[in-house]
Amino acid sequence: MQISPLLENLIESLRALPGVGPKSAQRMAYHLLQRNRNGGLHLSKALHEAMTHIGHCRSCRTFTEEDECNICQNYRRQMSGQLCVVEMPSDIPAIEQTGQFSGRYFVLMGRLSPLDGIGPREIGLDLLQQRLENESFHEVIVATNPTIEGEATANYIAEICAMYNVKVTRIAHGIPIGSDLEMVDGTTLSHSFSGRREIKL
Amino acid sequence: MQISPLLENLIESLRALPGVGPKSAQRMAYHLLQRNRNGGLHLSKALHEAMTHIGHCRSCRTFTEEDECNICQNYRRQMSGQLCVVEMPSDIPAIEQTGQFSGRYFVLMGRLSPLDGIGPREIGLDLLQQRLENESFHEVIVATNPTIEGEATANYIAEICAMYNVKVTRIAHGIPIGSDLEMVDGTTLSHSFSGRREIKL
Repeated sequence: MQISPLLENLIESLRALPGVGPKSAQRMAYHLLQRNRNGGLHLSKALHEAMTHIGHCRSCRTFTEEDECNICQNYRRQMSGQLCVVEMPSDIPAIEQTGQFSGRYFVLMGRLSPLDGIGPREIGLDLLQQRLENESFHEVIVATNPTIEGEATANYIAEICAMYNVKVTRIAHGIPIGSDLEMVDGTTLSHSFSGRREIKL
Repeated sequence: MQISPLLENLIESLRALPGVGPKSAQRMAYHLLQRNRNGGLHLSKALHEAMTHIGHCRSCRTFTEEDECNICQNYRRQMSGQLCVVEMPSDIPAIEQTGQFSGRYFVLMGRLSPLDGIGPREIGLDLLQQRLENESFHEVIVATNPTIEGEATANYIAEICAMYNVKVTRIAHGIPIGSDLEMVDGTTLSHSFSGRREIKL
């Protein structure tokens, strides 16, 4: 028995959100209708504006509604001479939260994956090359994911940087803080051995 | 470093959904932008339509965009002579799913709670009384929640039904199927004893 077509449609549409199944979608729809219609209207407006107005920064390709994002426009960050290459815009807030990096970013919007037809052009490496040519970076930090494709992408970027004599580094792989040695997989453990550092007293 | 005001606004607005904290909201926003902008636009439209057009059925007070909901309009259900009283519209799909009930509903949109200023009028008991007077029901099933307020509401409704000589029943409380006797709380267990039924062979 369909109670209300608009309600059914809302429940169905909520499933576009990641991790939301039929039960949670129903709970969300009823919650908004019963307790928070204003919140629902705000969300509707915010979604519409974000989906239609947010494009990509012309320098770093991250999400922004402006021509160039705040980070690229920031003078202090321009002066740092560091460029961090990440796969997705969602990687940026994670790195920002560490407070360890104050340079600029370059977002690939993916990773090299020749079998899926994703080559260097698709992930904007021509734009990256242009930037290496026109701007002066003293270090490119490659923070792609530690997957096979992410590693291949990192190597490709390292080759480009070598052409422009820019120092290129890769973020460290190893044992995550707070975990247990015996629970860590072999590949991670072997990375943590090969990447060992001298303890300086 | 705020990356994009529209994106921040979207993340903040997503927190209106129940069970969505800052981390999930961020994940949802990036997911929609990165992979499913169409889904986001559909959701925006569905939210707007639902929040602005869905009102309450004039007979049973559940959510509907029409004057009277599909269930109240259904001839077969009108003929059943049964009325199930629930606290919230979200209780209806749960009962519908059991396939055990084919009468009509009455939604209180709350429960009696004098301390919060919620009296019989606020939960529409005047409308219920009107319906008992004008329509012919042979049974009212009270399916309010098994809380103190839900029980008080059930008793109040039973008194109204008595005035109109309508049989009134309460859904059974007891051990949920699949649970373990020793894990069940004392009140539930004592309900399951006082509500015991003869095994008929």
